Amino acid sequence: MKRICVGILGFGTVGAGVARGLLENADVLRERTGLDLHLAKIADLDVTTDRGVAVPEGVLCTDAFAAVRDPAVQVVVELIGGTGVAKKLVEEALRAGKPVVTANKKLLAESGAELFALAAEKGVDLFFGASVGGGIPVIRSLRDGLAGCRVEKAYGILNGTCNYILTAMEKDGAPFADVLAQAQKLGFAEADPTLDVDGFDTLHKAAILASLAWGVRPDVHALSVRGIRGTVEAADIAEARAMGYRVKLLAVEKLHPEGLELRVAPTLVPADSMLGSVSGVFNAALFKSDMDDWTLHYGRGAGRLPTAATVVGDVAEAARNLAAGTHRPVAMPLAADPPAILPEGDVVSRFYVNLSLEDRPGSLAAATAAFAAHGVSISSAVQRGASEDGFATVVVLTHEARRADLGAALSAIEDLPVCGASPRWLGIEDF
Amino acid sequence: MKRICVGILGFGTVGAGVARGLLENADVLRERTGLDLHLAKIADLDVTTDRGVAVPEGVLCTDAFAAVRDPAVQVVVELIGGTGVAKKLVEEALRAGKPVVTANKKLLAESGAELFALAAEKGVDLFFGASVGGGIPVIRSLRDGLAGCRVEKAYGILNGTCNYILTAMEKDGAPFADVLAQAQKLGFAEADPTLDVDGFDTLHKAAILASLAWGVRPDVHALSVRGIRGTVEAADIAEARAMGYRVKLLAVEKLHPEGLELRVAPTLVPADSMLGSVSGVFNAALFKSDMDDWTLHYGRGAGRLPTAATVVGDVAEAARNLAAGTHRPVAMPLAADPPAILPEGDVVSRFYVNLSLEDRPGSLAAATAAFAAHGVSISSAVQRGASEDGFATVVVLTHEARRADLGAALSAIEDLPVCGASPRWLGIEDF
Repeated sequence: MKRICVGILGFGTVGAGVARGLLENADVLRERTGLDLHLAKIADLDVTTDRGVAVPEGVLCTDAFAAVRDPAVQVVVELIGGTGVAKKLVEEALRAGKPVVTANKKLLAESGAELFALAAEKGVDLFFGASVGGGIPVIRSLRDGLAGCRVEKAYGILNGTCNYILTAMEKDGAPFADVLAQAQKLGFAEADPTLDVDGFDTLHKAAILASLAWGVRPDVHALSVRGIRGTVEAADIAEARAMGYRVKLLAVEKLHPEGLELRVAPTLVPADSMLGSVSGVFNAALFKSDMDDWTLHYGRGAGRLPTAATVVGDVAEAARNLAAGTHRPVAMPLAADPPAILPEGDVVSRFYVNLSLEDRPGSLAAATAAFAAHGVSISSAVQRGASEDGFATVVVLTHEARRADLGAALSAIEDLPVCGASPRWLGIEDF
Repeated sequence: MKRICVGILGFGTVGAGVARGLLENADVLRERTGLDLHLAKIADLDVTTDRGVAVPEGVLCTDAFAAVRDPAVQVVVELIGGTGVAKKLVEEALRAGKPVVTANKKLLAESGAELFALAAEKGVDLFFGASVGGGIPVIRSLRDGLAGCRVEKAYGILNGTCNYILTAMEKDGAPFADVLAQAQKLGFAEADPTLDVDGFDTLHKAAILASLAWGVRPDVHALSVRGIRGTVEAADIAEARAMGYRVKLLAVEKLHPEGLELRVAPTLVPADSMLGSVSGVFNAALFKSDMDDWTLHYGRGAGRLPTAATVVGDVAEAARNLAAGTHRPVAMPLAADPPAILPEGDVVSRFYVNLSLEDRPGSLAAATAAFAAHGVSISSAVQRGASEDGFATVVVLTHEARRADLGAALSAIEDLPVCGASPRWLGIEDF
């Protein structure tokens, strides 16, 4: 049996998980790959902390560059993170003709084009399965399972922190800030939660999926992103629930004849749909394709072992390809004629709107007139009883409307003398 | 770009779907495989019926053996079905060193060991992704995505006909026979529905998953299988729903220290779980592994294009391997020390039981005494009101109990003078 030697750069949480996988599940990997995947090197500045993995003598080292250059290392796993030394190491490995597996979303976002070009030039694999969906083999499913399919739509719940917070807000009716604080205490949210709760992490992953599905290379800074901070209250989640919906931070990607809809926003999805059933820290991606209709891929979006599982899956393929003297075509080639990204204002969907209106005759009429004036057609408007301050909550569901028209209508309503707190709105997606 | 030529044997429903995929999505396949997948031959006795696919001149032929022998055919897709001529064609292709893709569950069940041995001897791929889960890339996920994981549990909703019937019974409260007749009219069930509704189709697929996960080669005739005919009534589904459960025909596979639990039975699953949300003709497989925790793989379990999508995915990999001069290790090697299959009676789970008891003092006491006498502990027993004939329905939920003990208790209850109709029972699985 052929032996392929693996070097891990970065012995942190995921690195330790990958080491555990390669060491303790070597028999399973032998059976499924026909190869002996041998952990040759682990490079980290800290080689003394106990990571809970029994590493054989001589494997740990402190010089990552030396590990990459070591002739005994044939496949390089980059888990250092960031775009500084990590980039240099990935480049050095690729230049030496060594396949690279990484989970480094940031590196892909900033230098993906460059690195993929280098991998193509050198004829080696550059895999990144764990960069989207953590433990879900979603990139693999898209490339292999749906290899012969044209993707028409993709929806993703791609951030475990946000899904945990929204699930807890539904369960306890607690405000966002309280649930976030609790999530931080439990280690489900970072001290600075911006990347997660404001939607940027989801957006980066959504951009990677869109690149794979449609050969686009979107400028993430120009894309529409709404997070779950300041946009969703527990009351909205309760209203949604009463109507048979749940609120999820959703990546929405749809190919229209006029262009690609690509955005991230908290969105109402049917509670009894597959995506509506994704709770807590779990993630999922739902694809609609011309041949395979709907498929869903669900699992843990993060965590030491699940992320490591996906990395090890990539290592297994890179090793098989290396042993066979072959490699994959570049995963994210720019399409010859990639679809244009639709402007946010032109996107059409149904909307949920939560209005605060003075509780007196004529209030609702003024609000509905504002919707009508901007071409937004209402499917229902229900008053939820007056609050103490003389303002009533009115929950409005619209028919399909342009996002720009909804925005104009809500601006006009906010300017009405009868309007209390600023209107809140969420899109609605049915599958 | 390298060209790999494909021959399709059998131009039926799925064959036409595969032809459509190769012809109309050739550009997508080129991008994802780096190869030109060329449809060289389609063999079928009937080459005149219009299958809705524009086949280039010279591709259709009536001699499948000639197609296999044609030097222009490099990858063979067997979609004839059955175990007669299909087996001869697969053998001939493998002997000639040509990789084979098939969706033929029956052929795998009867001659899998022999055919895999031949494929290994000749060093060619024998892929069968569409044999389980139709359009779901579930076998691929198990082999590749979970390549480094030890599977601990697998659950599957693997038969679209049964899931359609159970979903309709829940929705309409209609009896099994009526829903089956309707499903037959709509083309969702065969004229002879035995394979589907009595659980055998699910069992065959469950056995394939177990082979992949644990290297077992179970004798399907010796395995425990209950279908949905004569076991589940609309009343049970309604009772389950009221308790937060749905009834699904479930493949249950769990590795215990003492052996492998492997069985098919209609089972209560939490309504708001991922498997509980799988409705209508859709299928899903849920895995729990040591590294990846829970992953779910969901999609259409049958149908022309979804099944073809999975076949085309297999063709893409077979072509890539062929172009690289490599092949996969045999997919289902017998483990050196495969786990024993646990006897049905030793399997432990919670149970739902529906009793019909005379509506008079002492009835319930007699029944609960019978449970106690056989070591089955009850967690709740609720009477559902008397029916006209003086018998009341009592719904019993048990704690964890051995299947054999439950059976003995139910036999004893059936022999009680107070027992009306035979007790019905279903297992309960929580995730």
